[in-house]
Amino acid sequence: MQNGLKMSRRIRRTPYTARVEALGVSGFTVVNHTLLPKAFQHTAEDDYWHLREHVQLWDVGCQRQVEIRGSDAGRLVQWMTPRDLSTVAVGRCVYTPLVDHRGLLVNDPITIKLGDDHFWLSIADSDVALYALGLARGADLDVSVGEADIWPIAVQGPRAEALMCTLYGDHLRNVRYFGTATVEIDGSPCTVARSGYSGQGGFELYPTPAQGRAAWDALWRAGQAFDIRPGCPNLIDRIESGLLSFGNEMTRDDSPLEAGLARWCDLDTDTGCIGLDALRAQRARGVTRSLCGVRVDAPRGAVCTEPWPVRVGGETVGSLTSAIHSPRLGAHVALGILAHSASALGHGVEVQIDADLRVRGTVEALPFTPRDEASP
Amino acid sequence: MQNGLKMSRRIRRTPYTARVEALGVSGFTVVNHTLLPKAFQHTAEDDYWHLREHVQLWDVGCQRQVEIRGSDAGRLVQWMTPRDLSTVAVGRCVYTPLVDHRGLLVNDPITIKLGDDHFWLSIADSDVALYALGLARGADLDVSVGEADIWPIAVQGPRAEALMCTLYGDHLRNVRYFGTATVEIDGSPCTVARSGYSGQGGFELYPTPAQGRAAWDALWRAGQAFDIRPGCPNLIDRIESGLLSFGNEMTRDDSPLEAGLARWCDLDTDTGCIGLDALRAQRARGVTRSLCGVRVDAPRGAVCTEPWPVRVGGETVGSLTSAIHSPRLGAHVALGILAHSASALGHGVEVQIDADLRVRGTVEALPFTPRDEASP
Repeated sequence: MQNGLKMSRRIRRTPYTARVEALGVSGFTVVNHTLLPKAFQHTAEDDYWHLREHVQLWDVGCQRQVEIRGSDAGRLVQWMTPRDLSTVAVGRCVYTPLVDHRGLLVNDPITIKLGDDHFWLSIADSDVALYALGLARGADLDVSVGEADIWPIAVQGPRAEALMCTLYGDHLRNVRYFGTATVEIDGSPCTVARSGYSGQGGFELYPTPAQGRAAWDALWRAGQAFDIRPGCPNLIDRIESGLLSFGNEMTRDDSPLEAGLARWCDLDTDTGCIGLDALRAQRARGVTRSLCGVRVDAPRGAVCTEPWPVRVGGETVGSLTSAIHSPRLGAHVALGILAHSASALGHGVEVQIDADLRVRGTVEALPFTPRDEASP
Repeated sequence: MQNGLKMSRRIRRTPYTARVEALGVSGFTVVNHTLLPKAFQHTAEDDYWHLREHVQLWDVGCQRQVEIRGSDAGRLVQWMTPRDLSTVAVGRCVYTPLVDHRGLLVNDPITIKLGDDHFWLSIADSDVALYALGLARGADLDVSVGEADIWPIAVQGPRAEALMCTLYGDHLRNVRYFGTATVEIDGSPCTVARSGYSGQGGFELYPTPAQGRAAWDALWRAGQAFDIRPGCPNLIDRIESGLLSFGNEMTRDDSPLEAGLARWCDLDTDTGCIGLDALRAQRARGVTRSLCGVRVDAPRGAVCTEPWPVRVGGETVGSLTSAIHSPRLGAHVALGILAHSASALGHGVEVQIDADLRVRGTVEALPFTPRDEASP
């Protein structure tokens, strides 16, 4: 009971919380003031293998949709992100680091462009709605900012497509990665995207509570033929796939250039992003810290609940903020921001697991790849 | 393990988390992306009696200090709150509902005026720093907005003053409620306020991590002579005292006029508050919902983790969002927002505890008072 989570209205339940409780959820975390399941009856390793082979149903209602509408909606979203949105088509999802005027990260949502004047930002764990509202009211923009009554469900794993098509039609096979389609659930249209917080592919649904409960039950029933399990973001899969977690790998103190997100920063275009000047200046100076993947020779059960300091030649060069044993790689896979000087692929580092244990680590490319797959 | 909380860097530990773990913490909640202890070895009822008689040491590091500095700092804070801050002296704490342009609540911090151009907002659970930053940058104010590296500790209960004076000097006896003083901790000055989230009096310290760890250890040692215990906000004491919790009693959908906070809304002064027009209009129309205390004839062990619907004559008039058995009143004490028509003191209501159990409730004045004390 050391880690008991005390429930209250402030920690919001999703439309599916009663369902995951009935399915034996054994732990939660809190994201956006909302419960996110973190474990069911199986080990993380067992769930990892299942996710790679079958299909899982995830309650990701905590991915709150910040809804931005109005004639200045596009301007407001573009103001917050260094990614150039000028060529994004209606119906597309785009990964959008959000920054402040110093170029420091505020969040990293998937932005869904529902219309030229209508966006959903499917956010990580910070109150993007308050930031957007402050900017909008401070600059007197013609825009409304709210939280849509939309509670995402993720269907992840290699059999997700077959399951989704069984229920919602074969046209879903034609949906590209980060594309969307509309399906009918509970008698009304629902947005579906080919996306999700795993490396194994799948779909996310963006339903109302009533639609979501109907979809959950239908997916669970139809999923029995596909060996479906209840699941949640899997730490082994997440780290192996190089998927970042705002608050873990990067915080309000880090820029997207430091967090390995440069490819989503269009700094040569005058996008109007609030942090554009700061990010251009940082790029010109050169970053001094970079997000890295590190393979760590840690004991199999070592758990990283507090950052592991990383040293080179006795000098601290950063820390690893997420780590777990990968059964496929036979070592711990880890993510963290290190001094740029220590971040070259293949660089050797020392990782302090706890006061008594220092082990060897190696900087590796993301996503992590087993050594026999990497050198065919 | 149904309610296990999974730990990660994203859920921040405080400088005292290792200390409360060593003292046997048995549960946490998450506030401002930070751990808040919710229980130790004793029952809530046992801790309630202890809090009323002795002194407790609370890790309230989750009360993050949003720091606002610069020539426009006063203007920005006043923009966010309907409370008139023009007469607040340097060194004073003030309870400040924060609102948006619709007059809806964003948070309800204690604002500490450290200087004419320097404020700390000791916040409840929402990212006020992002709202303030958005407003500041949107309107191009001369102000910096950040999160101070300050981790509050609360010393609560009737013996708190004696304990604090033992360590930091008798001048603390002269500090009025919501006044501040400066004490020396670990060789440098630290702000202390007579405040705290209980009805039993006490102090809050606003230390850096190093100061805080030194203060925690000193308070714990000196506190042995005062029967000190580790503690945390006590739900029985909180509800009896009528202390609200943002996210529980009121949310982004409620105005301060609806949440019983009208006395902190100076609507007849042109404060410049962003929600002034909306709140004036709501006052002119008359509120249709009001926060109420309700005494509920619930079975002693009934737990309110989801709101309890409230009905009058078969019609739903609202819900109770926090409730617990009060051993002093011999009934459940509860808080919730009800239709204004049902909110008169003494009004009888029906409370749906669960699908099978409906019990009687009575609207009562806050703070709750035992009936023999109420009618002497």
